Amino acid sequence: MSKLWGGRFQKSAEEWVDEFGASIHFDKELVFEDLKGSMAHVKMLGKQGILSEEEASQILGGLEALKEKASKGELTFSVAQEDIHLNLEKHLIDEIGPIGGKLHTGRSRNDQVATDMHLYLKEQVESIIGLIEQFQTALVEKAEQNVETLAPGYTHLQRAQPISFGHHLMAYFWMLQRDKERFQEGLKRIDVSPLGAGALAGTTFPIDRELSAELLGFSKVYANSMDAVSDRDFILEFLSSASILMMHMSRLAEEMILWSSQEFQFIEMDDAFSTGSSIMPQKKNPDMAELIRGKTGRVYGNLFSLLTVLKGLPLAYNKDMQEDKEGMFDTVHTLIGSLKIFTGMVQTMKVNEGRLEEAVHNDFSNATELADYLASKGIPFREAHEIVGKLVLHCIQHQCYLADLPLEKLKEASDCIEEDIYQVLSPYEAVKRRKSLGGTGFDQVQLQIETAKSLVK
Amino acid sequence: MSKLWGGRFQKSAEEWVDEFGASIHFDKELVFEDLKGSMAHVKMLGKQGILSEEEASQILGGLEALKEKASKGELTFSVAQEDIHLNLEKHLIDEIGPIGGKLHTGRSRNDQVATDMHLYLKEQVESIIGLIEQFQTALVEKAEQNVETLAPGYTHLQRAQPISFGHHLMAYFWMLQRDKERFQEGLKRIDVSPLGAGALAGTTFPIDRELSAELLGFSKVYANSMDAVSDRDFILEFLSSASILMMHMSRLAEEMILWSSQEFQFIEMDDAFSTGSSIMPQKKNPDMAELIRGKTGRVYGNLFSLLTVLKGLPLAYNKDMQEDKEGMFDTVHTLIGSLKIFTGMVQTMKVNEGRLEEAVHNDFSNATELADYLASKGIPFREAHEIVGKLVLHCIQHQCYLADLPLEKLKEASDCIEEDIYQVLSPYEAVKRRKSLGGTGFDQVQLQIETAKSLVK
Amino acid sequence: MSKLWGGRFQKSAEEWVDEFGASIHFDKELVFEDLKGSMAHVKMLGKQGILSEEEASQILGGLEALKEKASKGELTFSVAQEDIHLNLEKHLIDEIGPIGGKLHTGRSRNDQVATDMHLYLKEQVESIIGLIEQFQTALVEKAEQNVETLAPGYTHLQRAQPISFGHHLMAYFWMLQRDKERFQEGLKRIDVSPLGAGALAGTTFPIDRELSAELLGFSKVYANSMDAVSDRDFILEFLSSASILMMHMSRLAEEMILWSSQEFQFIEMDDAFSTGSSIMPQKKNPDMAELIRGKTGRVYGNLFSLLTVLKGLPLAYNKDMQEDKEGMFDTVHTLIGSLKIFTGMVQTMKVNEGRLEEAVHNDFSNATELADYLASKGIPFREAHEIVGKLVLHCIQHQCYLADLPLEKLKEASDCIEEDIYQVLSPYEAVKRRKSLGGTGFDQVQLQIETAKSLVK
Amino acid sequence: MSKLWGGRFQKSAEEWVDEFGASIHFDKELVFEDLKGSMAHVKMLGKQGILSEEEASQILGGLEALKEKASKGELTFSVAQEDIHLNLEKHLIDEIGPIGGKLHTGRSRNDQVATDMHLYLKEQVESIIGLIEQFQTALVEKAEQNVETLAPGYTHLQRAQPISFGHHLMAYFWMLQRDKERFQEGLKRIDVSPLGAGALAGTTFPIDRELSAELLGFSKVYANSMDAVSDRDFILEFLSSASILMMHMSRLAEEMILWSSQEFQFIEMDDAFSTGSSIMPQKKNPDMAELIRGKTGRVYGNLFSLLTVLKGLPLAYNKDMQEDKEGMFDTVHTLIGSLKIFTGMVQTMKVNEGRLEEAVHNDFSNATELADYLASKGIPFREAHEIVGKLVLHCIQHQCYLADLPLEKLKEASDCIEEDIYQVLSPYEAVKRRKSLGGTGFDQVQLQIETAKSLVK
Repeated sequence: MSKLWGGRFQKSAEEWVDEFGASIHFDKELVFEDLKGSMAHVKMLGKQGILSEEEASQILGGLEALKEKASKGELTFSVAQEDIHLNLEKHLIDEIGPIGGKLHTGRSRNDQVATDMHLYLKEQVESIIGLIEQFQTALVEKAEQNVETLAPGYTHLQRAQPISFGHHLMAYFWMLQRDKERFQEGLKRIDVSPLGAGALAGTTFPIDRELSAELLGFSKVYANSMDAVSDRDFILEFLSSASILMMHMSRLAEEMILWSSQEFQFIEMDDAFSTGSSIMPQKKNPDMAELIRGKTGRVYGNLFSLLTVLKGLPLAYNKDMQEDKEGMFDTVHTLIGSLKIFTGMVQTMKVNEGRLEEAVHNDFSNATELADYLASKGIPFREAHEIVGKLVLHCIQHQCYLADLPLEKLKEASDCIEEDIYQVLSPYEAVKRRKSLGGTGFDQVQLQIETAKSLVK
Repeated sequence: MSKLWGGRFQKSAEEWVDEFGASIHFDKELVFEDLKGSMAHVKMLGKQGILSEEEASQILGGLEALKEKASKGELTFSVAQEDIHLNLEKHLIDEIGPIGGKLHTGRSRNDQVATDMHLYLKEQVESIIGLIEQFQTALVEKAEQNVETLAPGYTHLQRAQPISFGHHLMAYFWMLQRDKERFQEGLKRIDVSPLGAGALAGTTFPIDRELSAELLGFSKVYANSMDAVSDRDFILEFLSSASILMMHMSRLAEEMILWSSQEFQFIEMDDAFSTGSSIMPQKKNPDMAELIRGKTGRVYGNLFSLLTVLKGLPLAYNKDMQEDKEGMFDTVHTLIGSLKIFTGMVQTMKVNEGRLEEAVHNDFSNATELADYLASKGIPFREAHEIVGKLVLHCIQHQCYLADLPLEKLKEASDCIEEDIYQVLSPYEAVKRRKSLGGTGFDQVQLQIETAKSLVK
Repeated sequence: MSKLWGGRFQKSAEEWVDEFGASIHFDKELVFEDLKGSMAHVKMLGKQGILSEEEASQILGGLEALKEKASKGELTFSVAQEDIHLNLEKHLIDEIGPIGGKLHTGRSRNDQVATDMHLYLKEQVESIIGLIEQFQTALVEKAEQNVETLAPGYTHLQRAQPISFGHHLMAYFWMLQRDKERFQEGLKRIDVSPLGAGALAGTTFPIDRELSAELLGFSKVYANSMDAVSDRDFILEFLSSASILMMHMSRLAEEMILWSSQEFQFIEMDDAFSTGSSIMPQKKNPDMAELIRGKTGRVYGNLFSLLTVLKGLPLAYNKDMQEDKEGMFDTVHTLIGSLKIFTGMVQTMKVNEGRLEEAVHNDFSNATELADYLASKGIPFREAHEIVGKLVLHCIQHQCYLADLPLEKLKEASDCIEEDIYQVLSPYEAVKRRKSLGGTGFDQVQLQIETAKSLVK
Repeated sequence: MSKLWGGRFQKSAEEWVDEFGASIHFDKELVFEDLKGSMAHVKMLGKQGILSEEEASQILGGLEALKEKASKGELTFSVAQEDIHLNLEKHLIDEIGPIGGKLHTGRSRNDQVATDMHLYLKEQVESIIGLIEQFQTALVEKAEQNVETLAPGYTHLQRAQPISFGHHLMAYFWMLQRDKERFQEGLKRIDVSPLGAGALAGTTFPIDRELSAELLGFSKVYANSMDAVSDRDFILEFLSSASILMMHMSRLAEEMILWSSQEFQFIEMDDAFSTGSSIMPQKKNPDMAELIRGKTGRVYGNLFSLLTVLKGLPLAYNKDMQEDKEGMFDTVHTLIGSLKIFTGMVQTMKVNEGRLEEAVHNDFSNATELADYLASKGIPFREAHEIVGKLVLHCIQHQCYLADLPLEKLKEASDCIEEDIYQVLSPYEAVKRRKSLGGTGFDQVQLQIETAKSLVK
């Protein structure tokens, strides 16, 4: 087996070593990016007179032919050629003869692979941003249908205060909005061309890096050739943003799993996103939500892998960096799948309004109303809090709720309580009254939804 | 021990449980932020007529008094009061009487602590950005002194091609530039006020969230109260950016450690940043560089801690989130220390130009020159590569370098080689010739430095 | 400021650099271990005639005096002396004069610090094992009280099959049993003496490493001096075992939080382990369970920190390794606190049997019973599963449960169903019938508890 | 597409959702384990009379036929059947008709998949232990050839004291010895049968779990059915041990990369484990060592992924746990490949004794000798250290080494220095003299090697 870089070597590695070192089984995912990068490179070489017009056009023809074959799935890749770059170069030479060897003029695999990854991630992140928007749209729509759906609001998984269910859903909208911003900002550092940085030092050929960058649709070029070939920040940043996005989805997944339980029954997930049990015929499991919650681990792991790989690496390229790809591919696929699933789950989930209504009336989540009522009558908040705490304890001991207490009992606790307290204790009124900016009051939620709509296409 | 929230409870926790649950031993770091947040809140309450002018001014006076005491280190904190918020509230009531209890009107600890952390991190990130610029400046200055200092450029820790040592240093400049951008972009999401979100649902009091945000110097307010109190993205994003920055420093640390070894001897670190051995009198250890390389682990760990904490948490606040602080504080301190140390290390390091010069002449890093030379004579690059590979093997077997080979030997390998090859093989020429944009050619490096200077104040 | 290793140096580091490099603010936790190690070392030096009897006894006296002072909190430590070792050496010299300098004969800080950490962790892990057993005992006791308490058993957080609540609790017993085994096995690799390995190469003094190991209570000595000073596996292994233990606690924490919610109400946590809200007077939050669930992140983070630190470090000691301590200390404290809290929480939690009973009767978790019943009549399991699935759907559509269906309706589904089906569908019978080894049948659970008791002292 | 658990469902998921939820594309790696588990299960069912002898034998025949086909690569798997279990069950039914459905009697996918993973990991860990021993053997052999090869010993990557190169290699032997112990101990918790735990609660069928465990070669059975199906500790423990092993390999990789550099030139790696550059013909890159160092990140990531997945999961099975497999498979493959590569790299590496010899003579690593010499003459070690430090500084300023100083110069520093000092300063003598147990003295190293040999087969 003859290697393209074999001149200096006396014996070839055994096959299983090659297998271990090869990246072709995963970097073939970059086949179109690699061809695209080569096409831009060869056009530039022709334009600059580094290759003759004839040579450039011949090589370009060969690359077009390979692209055609790749589209049809007719290109085969071999471990003997290590990676996608050498595989394609071999195919090119097979296609157009030794002149194919001139493609690599003024370029190294180090800047080539970096270029491929920038191209790949740029395209994928743009798709991901689009999918986030679809998910946001699903949330806004479901929220809008539920502005006046009352629901218990929780802290510590204890019922805290009644809220608008739409308000709860909108909280996720804003998380996704930040996710989108992060991916968009990260794009600025993805959208940079390393092509022409050579192995690490640039090249002696009179290349035009700005031209090849332009041909590839990149907005700018790396300012330092060593940085260009050893930078993987753009992937780390993508993985960080992806980890935060997965964390958000894991939170909503957790909630949807809780809401789907027999104990909560706040929503029913569509059959399309649920599965059954091989042994328990009654089961309807929120499998997709669980799976996405689980996949959070995978994305966190991918981030940590690459952080570990890069820690303490001297400049410039080291083979360790071959480990940058699989985690990136895996994260891209995980995000795309998870976003699509979540969009569908939210769109199709059935909100059990009756059950939510019932929940909101049978608890103490209106206790803050009473405390605020007392405070508004001039009692220092801490004292009001104390008074209400004791009333709640009394209710628990007598198995009733605050609104069930007769006025005289309430007056015992504080004589500034009047008949109007019963309206104050109504969950609907409690929610409506929270008119502070960004609060759960219905008008506020509607306002929030309007703003949100303007942020998605 | 009477708790401020104790009304509903029948017995108090044992002390060691309190100790375990308390956060005061670390969140006291937020004392000034908490006071600042309270001052803005009370001013707003006064302005809105929720408190009378008299009340507001009395509370404000109390808070000023506490701030004064805190500055002098005269405030003591107690586990009995759990956290910084309740400790300060207790101090306030001790200071001005029960009216202090009115401070908490229209606010919850949930939005209060979030406000503190936004205030804290905003200030710290601004400092960190400043320190990054100082580090960048040190790099630019050292690079400018070494534009024409030749050095071996490495890939795989094998000498690859000669480069300008200044070019190598500048690679780190650009990494830091991206770090700075990330922190700056992250600031947008730190610079948002959660104050007024209440426990989770907003409040019934006619508060003005935009006013309190303005008083605190925040650019905008959270659009959703549940999001406001449960969002810790801004910390995660900070920790992600911090991890990437530490990774960069770990790479430079690794290189400076290598360069300081007896084998390399490319630089000498200043005594100020080195230490000795308790047993080996000759040792001069690059301790600070090693320590910072090691501290990379700490920051990665802090990131993964918080990612783990937040995974799968239902909305809104959960006590798990108390774990958000220590890792943030620790990361802030680690970054500040590491950046200052690195700035000093780079400023004071002595570059051994003689040793670098010697290194560059005694290796095969000019092999690419020969290959490019052949390619420029029309030999396909892959063939040229093969020819040079064989010549290198010949040299190794005869213990010499390429420039030592007589012309006839070179011509045997390829008869297009002429006398001018010896100039081509000179490392100085090799570096100079790499004029491609962002390459190591001296002019390019100088240009890069000019651009860089415009990016730091 | 004169450093003990300063002979070779021309200028001293600035103070803030010293501060950054110093470990005394955390490694002072090792004060007693360091003194203990020194005492064993000096006894050995005396025994071997490396120091005279007089010298050894004088130094020993000095060390005893320091120990006495340390116990009384009278020793002060200073950043000027970097770490616990140099601080104590300085104190020793202050105490007994220059002869104190002889203590360091045949020893280096590298083997000294390793010895301290082995001593520390050995003692702590032994405590932790004891606390795990206490937690196990609490679980067994609570389980034994609840062998016949019926509860819904969940998969996918959907009710799956009725179980014994005691059986559920016992699942955690076995997790802890494995945790204990792991800590015990890890002890084998903690219980090894590095003392006498010197800086990395051993020493020329005729020391007796087995003697000093014996004096320190270690079972064996490291076989290789370089390994002895650069090994931190024993900490990593501890952190791994700790991470798994925390993961177990996070699962039980999650369940106790769910069970304490208004939706489940399966248990009531004792007030001692709950807290209130500063704003919502009715709240009783399962704070301690949440906090421990959150602290899982901290321990995971500590593991990943140290894994990162050690990745790619050349032998032998590097300053990076100073980062091994804080995460270890923090993990020890976290485990000790969490185990104690959990023991108390389980001991004091009130199981709401009525609520559990009710839950078990109002669901489809007896569906498997019907499927097994059909299978036992010779219907292939997959068919049986299909039949029952359809009956469940019918019930849902008609808002009833399986046991509510009249026999004729059941016979429509499969005519092999007889009157005895109603007993089969009873949750009590369903649990009782699961007599397979390790199953939830009451007899099996009782048997399990007996075995468990024999595994804790 | 009809699902085996579909009775309760009204519409089937869209295909892409199925694709996302399916595990068949990776869990097909468990095909033989799944068949083995089913065979044991059906034999047990037959033995216990739960199936008739005829039925059992028919199913067993079907399973044998599937195994045969699988060996020949003739089984195809489909996403429509989700996972390996349902795929095989479908194949079985296709093979032998509806009676195949009886295989699942008294079993659930939950205990089935757990059984598969225990079987898989048991076998793989046994292989890995064997490969560790081969690697250890390679180290012992290379160490034995280099007992008297002098080399610089490093701390802080600064030359510290001369050592035996064999001693250095042996440090890794002991790390691997601990790795082996950890895997062996972990096996105890892998070697346990979950089969018969059912979905979570055991089964009503009179199964014999001990019999099926015995048929599968497991040493014991899980004591609690809920634990049996929700335990993934054994994988976490494997991943932890794997992470530590990878960390060890990353350290040796780092050293071999350093040693292969032009600056060190201590070893030459065999061509079989090196590769060239596509652009620089002279390059011989230690690719395999770099790649394994990089793969450390992958294994750390896999550990962190699973820790994240399991954090906070309620009992018993949740779909999140499907995420347990890919990281396990990937880690197994990574370990097997890395161990084989490293064994070959160590066996074939050429130690440049001449270069090592030269290194050892041209530095100050004999400074400790001089300090020890002074200490042995009664000078307190700290003073001796100071004296030698100053002599080193003098030498550096005059560009010589300690052995180059004339006796009178040495006497100036301390008049107890005599002519015998020159022998003391010889690196060979310095190494030889370190006779402390486990030290680098040649006899000690030889002894160490003898012990080591007895620990590998």
